[in-house]
Amino acid sequence: MMITKDTPAHHPIHDIIKNRWSPRAFNKESLTELELSQIMEAARWAPSAMNEQPWRYIVARRDQTELFNMMLTPLAEGNSMWAKDAGALVLAISQQNYSGSGNPNRHAYHDLGLANAHLILQAEALGIRSHQMGGFDANKARELFEIPEGFEPLTYIALGRQGTHDHLADFLQEREAAPRQRKPQSEFVFQGSFGKK
Amino acid sequence: MMITKDTPAHHPIHDIIKNRWSPRAFNKESLTELELSQIMEAARWAPSAMNEQPWRYIVARRDQTELFNMMLTPLAEGNSMWAKDAGALVLAISQQNYSGSGNPNRHAYHDLGLANAHLILQAEALGIRSHQMGGFDANKARELFEIPEGFEPLTYIALGRQGTHDHLADFLQEREAAPRQRKPQSEFVFQGSFGKK
Repeated sequence: MMITKDTPAHHPIHDIIKNRWSPRAFNKESLTELELSQIMEAARWAPSAMNEQPWRYIVARRDQTELFNMMLTPLAEGNSMWAKDAGALVLAISQQNYSGSGNPNRHAYHDLGLANAHLILQAEALGIRSHQMGGFDANKARELFEIPEGFEPLTYIALGRQGTHDHLADFLQEREAAPRQRKPQSEFVFQGSFGKK
Repeated sequence: MMITKDTPAHHPIHDIIKNRWSPRAFNKESLTELELSQIMEAARWAPSAMNEQPWRYIVARRDQTELFNMMLTPLAEGNSMWAKDAGALVLAISQQNYSGSGNPNRHAYHDLGLANAHLILQAEALGIRSHQMGGFDANKARELFEIPEGFEPLTYIALGRQGTHDHLADFLQEREAAPRQRKPQSEFVFQGSFGKK
């Protein structure tokens, strides 16, 4: 059985934003080279402070078996147990200092977030779901992929077509079926003063 | 004259991602209450680590004259000189620690970036352009909007319909007309090892 999710939005929003959610059940089909290129191209055109583009990615498609398995190894077991079924894996890395001046880039993580959102929404536009994971061994990833100092591996992204969830562990099946929830706007959109309205 | 921009994408990407860019020429038309609600609703549904939703926003529409002018004051002059023509202004703020445990949230800035990208792409879907600005006095903003400790005002976002650029200062007209440029994927998408491929 394949889970469908309702997004109880309070105002009309674009389909690729409304329909996106983060499943753990993927169908083991590899992304194609073109699909992954389109998805990374969307990240490419994200905005960034001073157009610094402080994002780097290590990527592997499922059909690149050796690279794909290598990418699984830094993941926490609670993630790799389902991420192994993804069609591609992406490790998102930020450049902490400006290329030109070497000064710290206060917007590095933020701008990586902008690029990652472009990436996952482009995936959604192609019928490909995504699931971001903070649970991985950053030191192991740094060593394995020879990530230099000044660059910070921040988040993994599993990409793939959604699959049936019956084979997931019970506790994952529960999470998979849980309704989507967010704070109402009144708790994070303010006017004139923090916390107001 | 109104500038049009070409996005020389190397692979097909979704229109709202492809067509988005950050103008300085806005047409002084206010966003409606519904438009701003839709845009903030898109931010609401962004993903975040542990579903923490570490984003807060101070917002003002142009037709809320007093609030709008208040929001202009922390901006650097190089920004307020054109942002004053926007249809709404948004200050994006991150919550630095987890609400439950109080532990530092390493993904706070990143997840604010995810939400901001949802926000600007929803704007684009409504025909509303956006321009993010790091140039503002964060201490002034903190004082003015009574932003508590543990929250970090990170970026302003001007929203509005694009206008003609003839009235902009000459140096801004030049930037406005400059072609869109990004690194090729070969400089930020790697396989197996950082910098490879």
